[in-house]
Amino acid sequence: MSILDKISKPADLRPLTAEELGKLAGELRQRIISQVSCGGGHLAPNLGTVELTIALLRSFDLPAERIIWDVGHQSYSYKLLTGRQKEFEHLREFNGCCGFPVRNESIFDFYGAGHAGVAISAALGMCAAQKPEDRSKVIAVAGDGAIASGVALEGLNQVRSYGRNLVIILNDNKMAISQNVGALSKVLNRMMTSYRYRWIKNSTKAMINLLPKSQSITNFIKNVEDTAKHLFLPSEPFESLGIRYLGPINGHNIHDMERAFAAVKRDDRPVIIHIVTQKGKGYAPAEAAPERFHGVGAFDAATGKPIKKSTPGFSAAFGKAACRLAEKDPDISAVVAAMTSGVGLSDFAQKFPDRFYDAGMAESHAVTFSSGLAAAGKTVICAVYATFMQRSLDNIFHDVCLMDLPVIFALDRAGLVEDGPTHHGIYDLGFLLGLNNLTVMQPACEAEVYPMLEYAVKLHSPVVIRYPRGSSGSDLRSDIPPISAIEKPGSTVWRQGSDLAIYAVGAEAVRALEIADLLQEKYSLSAKVVNVRFLKPFDKNELQKDLQTMSVFTLEDHVTSTGFGAIAAGCAAELATPYKLHSLGIKADQAPTFGAVNKLRESLQLDTESIARAIAETTKR
Amino acid sequence: MSILDKISKPADLRPLTAEELGKLAGELRQRIISQVSCGGGHLAPNLGTVELTIALLRSFDLPAERIIWDVGHQSYSYKLLTGRQKEFEHLREFNGCCGFPVRNESIFDFYGAGHAGVAISAALGMCAAQKPEDRSKVIAVAGDGAIASGVALEGLNQVRSYGRNLVIILNDNKMAISQNVGALSKVLNRMMTSYRYRWIKNSTKAMINLLPKSQSITNFIKNVEDTAKHLFLPSEPFESLGIRYLGPINGHNIHDMERAFAAVKRDDRPVIIHIVTQKGKGYAPAEAAPERFHGVGAFDAATGKPIKKSTPGFSAAFGKAACRLAEKDPDISAVVAAMTSGVGLSDFAQKFPDRFYDAGMAESHAVTFSSGLAAAGKTVICAVYATFMQRSLDNIFHDVCLMDLPVIFALDRAGLVEDGPTHHGIYDLGFLLGLNNLTVMQPACEAEVYPMLEYAVKLHSPVVIRYPRGSSGSDLRSDIPPISAIEKPGSTVWRQGSDLAIYAVGAEAVRALEIADLLQEKYSLSAKVVNVRFLKPFDKNELQKDLQTMSVFTLEDHVTSTGFGAIAAGCAAELATPYKLHSLGIKADQAPTFGAVNKLRESLQLDTESIARAIAETTKR
Repeated sequence: MSILDKISKPADLRPLTAEELGKLAGELRQRIISQVSCGGGHLAPNLGTVELTIALLRSFDLPAERIIWDVGHQSYSYKLLTGRQKEFEHLREFNGCCGFPVRNESIFDFYGAGHAGVAISAALGMCAAQKPEDRSKVIAVAGDGAIASGVALEGLNQVRSYGRNLVIILNDNKMAISQNVGALSKVLNRMMTSYRYRWIKNSTKAMINLLPKSQSITNFIKNVEDTAKHLFLPSEPFESLGIRYLGPINGHNIHDMERAFAAVKRDDRPVIIHIVTQKGKGYAPAEAAPERFHGVGAFDAATGKPIKKSTPGFSAAFGKAACRLAEKDPDISAVVAAMTSGVGLSDFAQKFPDRFYDAGMAESHAVTFSSGLAAAGKTVICAVYATFMQRSLDNIFHDVCLMDLPVIFALDRAGLVEDGPTHHGIYDLGFLLGLNNLTVMQPACEAEVYPMLEYAVKLHSPVVIRYPRGSSGSDLRSDIPPISAIEKPGSTVWRQGSDLAIYAVGAEAVRALEIADLLQEKYSLSAKVVNVRFLKPFDKNELQKDLQTMSVFTLEDHVTSTGFGAIAAGCAAELATPYKLHSLGIKADQAPTFGAVNKLRESLQLDTESIARAIAETTKR
Repeated sequence: MSILDKISKPADLRPLTAEELGKLAGELRQRIISQVSCGGGHLAPNLGTVELTIALLRSFDLPAERIIWDVGHQSYSYKLLTGRQKEFEHLREFNGCCGFPVRNESIFDFYGAGHAGVAISAALGMCAAQKPEDRSKVIAVAGDGAIASGVALEGLNQVRSYGRNLVIILNDNKMAISQNVGALSKVLNRMMTSYRYRWIKNSTKAMINLLPKSQSITNFIKNVEDTAKHLFLPSEPFESLGIRYLGPINGHNIHDMERAFAAVKRDDRPVIIHIVTQKGKGYAPAEAAPERFHGVGAFDAATGKPIKKSTPGFSAAFGKAACRLAEKDPDISAVVAAMTSGVGLSDFAQKFPDRFYDAGMAESHAVTFSSGLAAAGKTVICAVYATFMQRSLDNIFHDVCLMDLPVIFALDRAGLVEDGPTHHGIYDLGFLLGLNNLTVMQPACEAEVYPMLEYAVKLHSPVVIRYPRGSSGSDLRSDIPPISAIEKPGSTVWRQGSDLAIYAVGAEAVRALEIADLLQEKYSLSAKVVNVRFLKPFDKNELQKDLQTMSVFTLEDHVTSTGFGAIAAGCAAELATPYKLHSLGIKADQAPTFGAVNKLRESLQLDTESIARAIAETTKR
C-alpha cells in the first residue's frame, strides 16, 4: 500500500516522517503524471506545487483555516490529499473531477477558481468576515504571473486594512504561462540574487571592526544594517504596502516551508511568503519545456510526446494571417496577454519583435495599451481568450470603441471548452453587441480567418473576430463554397434548401452542413445553410426573407438570449407576418460543466444528432 | 483685456512673466468657478490643477508631445488654454464643450477619458509606437486615487519595458473622490512627511563628526546616507518598479514644477513626478468641503450653496433601505468603490463601520472582496455606478454567479447621464442577462427599492438592482398602485388599456404613465402600462398574452438590442401567431452624447412627447 493510499484527509499527513513525506511527494507526482498523460490537463504547474501542498496541509488546520488557490490549475495534489483520489481518476471528464477547485466538489474547496488574480481579494474578504477574536489564517496561493494582474494588485493595495489573518503564498516559478513580463517579476528575480544585500552586509561587518567600539556607533551600524536589509531584500515592494515579507524559500523543501508557516501562524500581521518552485519539477520532459507542459492533451508518459498530433486549427490560421498582413503593412502591431503560443502568435513574436507586445496576465492593460498604440497611428491586433477578455470589456468600450480606434480583437477559445464553467467563451457577445463603432465577425472555417482579418485591417475601426479552440472540421467537407476576400458585411449562403434554414455562426456553420446532411438522409428535409459571418452589423434582409417562407433556426456557440439568437429575434420582430424562429445554442439558465466538448454538447443537446432531431421535430410539428 | 483672453494656444503661455502667470491662474479659477456655478460640473479637481496645467503647457511641446488626462475631470484649465474659451461657456451643455477630453473636440485632446486609471497604459502604448529616435515625451496625469485602480497598476508594472519617454504626473490631492484607501495612499502620505529620512540623515551627519576622518569610513557613511534616502524617500514603491521618482513638489508653484519638468525632458528614463495639490484650491467653500464640490450642480458662487435643493431620489432610497435591512440582520455588509456618498451609503458607513468597506477606485477588487465576504457567510450589498461596474463584469461572473454567492449589486446611475458617452449606464445588461444564477431587477420608483432589496436578501443568491440617477418623479403621480413586499418574480400592471401595452423597465414605468396620459388625451389611444420589475427571470406570460391582442412597446434605459428589447423579442419569437412588438430605448448604433438628460432624450426621440407620437403613429399604421 502506498503512502498516498493512506491519506484520506489532511490530518492523515501529520504523523508522517520526513522520509515518508519525500516518498509521498514522489507518489503524488507519479499519480499526476499518469493521470494527465492519459486524459490531459495542467501538468507543469501541478508538478511544481506538490511539496507546497503537503507543507500547507500539515501546517494549517483545514477547514477552520482556508486555502484559496488562485487560478486553481495547480490544485491536483490538493485534490488528491483532501479525499478525492478515486474522483481524480476521472479528472476533467464529464461528471468527473474538475481540473479547478469547485465549492460543491469538496468542503476543502473554499473558493472556485479558473481566472487569475482573484485569490487575494477573495481571501481578504474572508478575513474581513472573521470575528475579531478569530485567529485562523486564510491562505491565498498565487503565482508570480497572476499576482501582476490588476485585481491582484488592487487587492494587495488593501491587504493592510483587513488582512490581519491573511497569508499570501507567492508561488514564484519565474514563468507564469509563457514568460513573465513587467517590473514585479524583475523585482522577484532581484530578490533571488540580492547580491547588493550581501555586499552591504559584509561591508558593514568589516567596518564594525575598524570602528571604535562605542555603544552608540555599534547601534547605529546595527540600525543601518537592518535598514539595508529591508532595502535590498525582497521585502521592497511588499513591505511598502504594509505586508510582512518572508523568503525566498525553496518550494521543494517541505521542512523549510513548514518552519516559515509555523512562524507566520503566531503572527497577526498580513504576510507574503515567497516560495520558489520549478514548473514541471520531477518530470524531465516538463522541466525541459514547462510552457508546452503547462496545459497538455494526452501524451506518452515515457517520452513526453503527444499521442495525437494536434491539428492546426483557428489559432494557427490566425497567427499565419497576422504574419501575412504584418509583412505587407509595417504599422500592424500585435498585443497579447501572456498567451503568445496559445493564441498562435509565437511566429509573429519572432518575426516582428519590435511590433509584438506581451502585456502579461493583465488583460485590461493589454487592451488600453493597444488603444494607446492605435491612437498613435498603429493598427493593432489584440489576441486574448474570449473568457479572459471579459476582464477588458470596459476597456474595449471606453478606450477603443468610444474613440473609434483601429484595434482588432481576436477572441480565441470562444464557445464551449473542456476546462469548464470558468473558461467557456459564451458570454462576451452580450456586452460587445451593444457597442457603437464595433464590428463583430466569426469565421466559419480556418480559410475565412485571413479574409476577415484583412477586412478588419482595412476597416480601420474596432473589430472583434471570435473563433473556437481547435479546428472547424472544414477539411472533411467538400461542399464549402470557395472563400474569397470580404468586400462588405453580409452572410454567405452555403447550401440551398426549401424546408427550413439554419443560420449558423462561426464554426457552427460547418456543423450545420452535417446537420443538413442528416436532415436530408433521416428526415427527408431540405435545409438551407447560411454562414452568418457578420454579427454586427448584421444584414437582416436574407433572414427576413427566409422567415417569410420557412422555419428558421439560429445556431451559435454562445448564450442565445444575449447572442445571435437575440439579434435574429429582434429582426423577426420587425415582420408583420407570422414566422417560425428557433434559437439553438446555450441558454442563460444552463450552466455548462466541464469535460470533452462533444460530451458537453450532448449534455446540452447540441450535438449534431440532437440538433437534427430537434429541427426535424419542430419543422414537422 | 485679461491675460487669459490673449491665450489662444499653448505657445502663448511661453512669454508670460511670473507675475502674469500668477494673475492667469487667478483668472482661470474665476472662469472655472463662474462657469461651474452656473452650469454645474467638476469643481474641486479643476481648481486643484490650474498651476499644474500652466506648468505642463509651458514645459512641453504640444502637439508633438502629448498629455493624457486620467479620468479627465480635471482638464478645464487645459481646455481654456488650448483654444476653447468660447466653447467653455457651453461646458457640459448638449452640443457644447464636453466636461472630459474628447479626441474630436481638439487636436490637443489626444485621448478621450472618463473612467479612472487608463492614462498610464494608454500613454505607454503611445510611447511604444514612437520611433527609436523620437524623444518627445508622453505625459500621463493621474490622481492618487486612480493610480490604485487595477489597470493603472498593471500599466505601472510594465512602464519599465516601453516607457523611455513616459512622464507620469501623480496628482496627489490626498482625496481621490471620497477618501483614499489602501496602502499606496499611505505610502504617499509617508513620502510627504518622511521624518524617518530626516532623522537618519541628521543622525548620520552627527555621527560623521564623531568618527575618525578616514576616507573609507566617510564614503561608507555617504553610501549609507544614499541608501537611507532611497529607502525612506517616496521613491520606495516606484523605483522598485524601475521608474525614476521626483518629488514631492508643490503643485501650486509653477516655477518649482517647471524646474522638475525641465530636468525630466533631458532624461530618457520613465519618471513619476509627485505633485501635491489641494482640491478646491482658491475657493474657500470648495477647500472646506472638497468632496461635496467634486462634482456639483449649479450653486451660488458667493456662498457655495446649491441653487436647487436636490431631491432625495433612488440613491437615498437605496441607502435608507440598506440601513433598515442591516439593522435587522447583522450579517449584511456593504462594499463600495470610492463613491460612498454618491451611492447613498454615507449613513450606512457611519452606522455600521464594522460592516462597511470602501475598496477605493478598484471595482474588480470590490466585487471579488464582496464575494470573499459572501463565501464566509455574509450577505453583501455592493454598490457601484453602472458604468464603472463594467470594470467588474468578469468578477460578477467568475467570483459571484458561478458560485451562486449572496452578493447584491446595486447599480446606480443606470441609463443616460449628463456626463456623457463615457458615463452612460446603458451597456451592462447585455453581459449580465446571460449569466446563470443571477437575478436582475429594476425598481420603477423609490418606494420599490426597499421591497426589492428585501427580496434580494431573502433570495441568498446573486442579484443586480439597477436604477438611474435622481428621482423617478413618482411623487408627481397619484395613479401608482400601492407598492408591497415582493413574493416572487413578476411584473405588475400599473394601468389597464385596450389599444396597446407599454412594458416599461425601471423608472421608465413612471414615464410610461405620462405617455399613456398623452396617448389618451392627444391620440385617443388606451394604453396599458406594465412595470416590468424583473428582467431575469422574466415572466413572459403577461407579455405573450398581450402580444396576441394588441401592439406592445418595450421601453427601457438601456441599449434595446442587448437589453429588455432583446428579452421581449425572444419571448415574442416563441409565438405562432403574428404580433406587433416595438422596442424603445437606445439603439446600438447610436452614440448618446453629453448634456442635460432631457436634451439627450429629445435628441434620441426618447422624450415623452416623441415617444407618445411614435407609439400613436405605429399603432394607427
